[in-house]
Amino acid sequence: MKAHKPITLLTDFGHYDPYVGIMKGVILGILPQVPIIDLCHRCSAYDIAEAAFLLHLSYRYFPAETIHVIVVDPGVGGPRRPLLVTTERYYFIAPDNGILSYIYETGDFRRAFEITASHYFLNPSSSTFHGRDIFAPVAAYLRKGIPPEAFGPEIHDVVKLPLSRPQWSRKEGTLKGTVLHVDSFGNLITNISHHDLEEFRSTISRRKIAIKLGGSEIQGIKTFFAQGEEGRLEAIMGSCGYLEIFVNRGNASLVSGMGKGTEVILSPL
Amino acid sequence: MKAHKPITLLTDFGHYDPYVGIMKGVILGILPQVPIIDLCHRCSAYDIAEAAFLLHLSYRYFPAETIHVIVVDPGVGGPRRPLLVTTERYYFIAPDNGILSYIYETGDFRRAFEITASHYFLNPSSSTFHGRDIFAPVAAYLRKGIPPEAFGPEIHDVVKLPLSRPQWSRKEGTLKGTVLHVDSFGNLITNISHHDLEEFRSTISRRKIAIKLGGSEIQGIKTFFAQGEEGRLEAIMGSCGYLEIFVNRGNASLVSGMGKGTEVILSPL
Amino acid sequence: MKAHKPITLLTDFGHYDPYVGIMKGVILGILPQVPIIDLCHRCSAYDIAEAAFLLHLSYRYFPAETIHVIVVDPGVGGPRRPLLVTTERYYFIAPDNGILSYIYETGDFRRAFEITASHYFLNPSSSTFHGRDIFAPVAAYLRKGIPPEAFGPEIHDVVKLPLSRPQWSRKEGTLKGTVLHVDSFGNLITNISHHDLEEFRSTISRRKIAIKLGGSEIQGIKTFFAQGEEGRLEAIMGSCGYLEIFVNRGNASLVSGMGKGTEVILSPL
Repeated sequence: MKAHKPITLLTDFGHYDPYVGIMKGVILGILPQVPIIDLCHRCSAYDIAEAAFLLHLSYRYFPAETIHVIVVDPGVGGPRRPLLVTTERYYFIAPDNGILSYIYETGDFRRAFEITASHYFLNPSSSTFHGRDIFAPVAAYLRKGIPPEAFGPEIHDVVKLPLSRPQWSRKEGTLKGTVLHVDSFGNLITNISHHDLEEFRSTISRRKIAIKLGGSEIQGIKTFFAQGEEGRLEAIMGSCGYLEIFVNRGNASLVSGMGKGTEVILSPL
Repeated sequence: MKAHKPITLLTDFGHYDPYVGIMKGVILGILPQVPIIDLCHRCSAYDIAEAAFLLHLSYRYFPAETIHVIVVDPGVGGPRRPLLVTTERYYFIAPDNGILSYIYETGDFRRAFEITASHYFLNPSSSTFHGRDIFAPVAAYLRKGIPPEAFGPEIHDVVKLPLSRPQWSRKEGTLKGTVLHVDSFGNLITNISHHDLEEFRSTISRRKIAIKLGGSEIQGIKTFFAQGEEGRLEAIMGSCGYLEIFVNRGNASLVSGMGKGTEVILSPL
Repeated sequence: MKAHKPITLLTDFGHYDPYVGIMKGVILGILPQVPIIDLCHRCSAYDIAEAAFLLHLSYRYFPAETIHVIVVDPGVGGPRRPLLVTTERYYFIAPDNGILSYIYETGDFRRAFEITASHYFLNPSSSTFHGRDIFAPVAAYLRKGIPPEAFGPEIHDVVKLPLSRPQWSRKEGTLKGTVLHVDSFGNLITNISHHDLEEFRSTISRRKIAIKLGGSEIQGIKTFFAQGEEGRLEAIMGSCGYLEIFVNRGNASLVSGMGKGTEVILSPL
């Protein structure tokens, strides 16, 4: 039954506060026993671009009809609109601040609605915690079977962030990417996708690849982590389909002193 | 069905250990499939007053008949009693160390029982982890339908902490509050409630309010976060009904160097 | 019904990333509504011995037929095998890197299977995230009723780590243990079990015990935490059946400057 499909939560609320628990309380008050899954709550505070990327890496691993609720929302209570977005397989409920930008780019994007139907909101509603007052109850009512159209008018001007894409220079024969996220292991996850890498490889006649970041150069791309020499920066095609810099049994971010925003340059060896 | 209503957990166990998971294992061994919700597990270790405040901010957002289990319990195994408390809508299971002090103050408080019925405990029971050995199984059996009276005798001398309330000085025309909690965003949450603020406002003929903390002065109270100038301390009525000091897209605690216990003084501008 | 028994997750993935959430998405895609319990996700990265110990402390508190999934897996994608292990009451799914060493030592151990049936894996599968691609879906299919034998051949050469045991010196009349884990409270959890301590006690005619670690000496063993003088190192038989060094309402690791690997020496007073 649809009411048993999951609702996921992705926020920058951290774990020091009961904010995430409160959202779950509101959901269960409307729809007892729906599975609520924590996607991640330690997105960097207010960092919409990073949360958008983490969502992009994860939403596809959930069953069809999952409702993904995303609350990284520095503009809460101001003019930014609350959104309900449908794609071929999923629902997304989030502030209209660009956090769904990757979703709009997929062929699966269907419709976007501004959430205005305040009779589905918590009453009273605050202007500082829409996660609790708007996004959580709307997710629960949607899960319960209220159709997306019932929450507000369809809109066609959603906010889109410019997505960070690697730059390909034919002249220099290089592909320049950027680190978008550092994970718990210290792995530096870049914006260079599997597809980007394959394309680049084909233009350099499949020669071995050199990867420069900071003062370091990495030669070639490993297939699994344990192939890396301990203590040394290495590259790998990560599990989420993006090139990662890692250290076998170590922390690439600490070893290299580099993090989000670091430039990563690929060239033929 | 009542057995499908949630059990929530609020502890100072953190996330480095399997203690919270173990409590859930014990509950599911008695009552499979009950929804167990993490309210917060990073309360400051042993800080009963802070946990009491966080509980106070959150318990009302859960459906009626939710069982709230609170384990911030430095006195575990000693003379302090394990408690089961009923209110008009909820159940609370916690050590009798004052952690339910806000609950006792509401008109909804009904009865308090000392938990003594050891046939509901884990066997053997330790003297160092009552969360696992007493509170978790009692929550599960209560959820299963065992009546509160079955767990032990009613008592009338529960431990109450003096609650931190703002001080109103008619002579100076000020309201002095205190920071009770710093959240993940660095927001300083004070003990000045919406009600306190309205009362204070009425005595100063609704003039604008100045807020002093440390060497800083904040003028006026914002309605939503994005109204604040970036980098500057601002005040707002927070989503939980208490005055908060914040920095728009920043961290008020880091910016001000202030935290729990900081005095916050309101006066007419 | 068996499909309603829990699946637990123990990993070193931390909380900065959606990796744990993704594993849950994969499980729910195969088996909606199975209870998934987080055992712990902040095991020290790559620390197989510590994770093995934490698993050992916790798995018994779950209902019979629980499936425990453990992913501390620095060798992912290399030659190390994925395992499915059965014991009298539980199932364990983990890399064959010694992380189940304590489990093999109990009389309850039954059979071990190498997971090779790739039609149960996520397709495509990566060589860097078997938690998502192999362990999660295999757990879900096992929970769904696929028998253990269906996932691959039985094996008899599982990897076993040497377990850290205290050393008993009859000559010196001492028992030398080691700190295996520091918990969120800063408690130092040693490898000296309740059984070890009782045996040692019987050889010293039940005299009082002195405990040395670093430059400190602790006299006697407390029964509950609040018996300790504030600020002073004390010893207690912990809730998981191992001797712990603690500070009442304090942090023994910070107070003593000691942590994992510290030697702890018991002798008669």
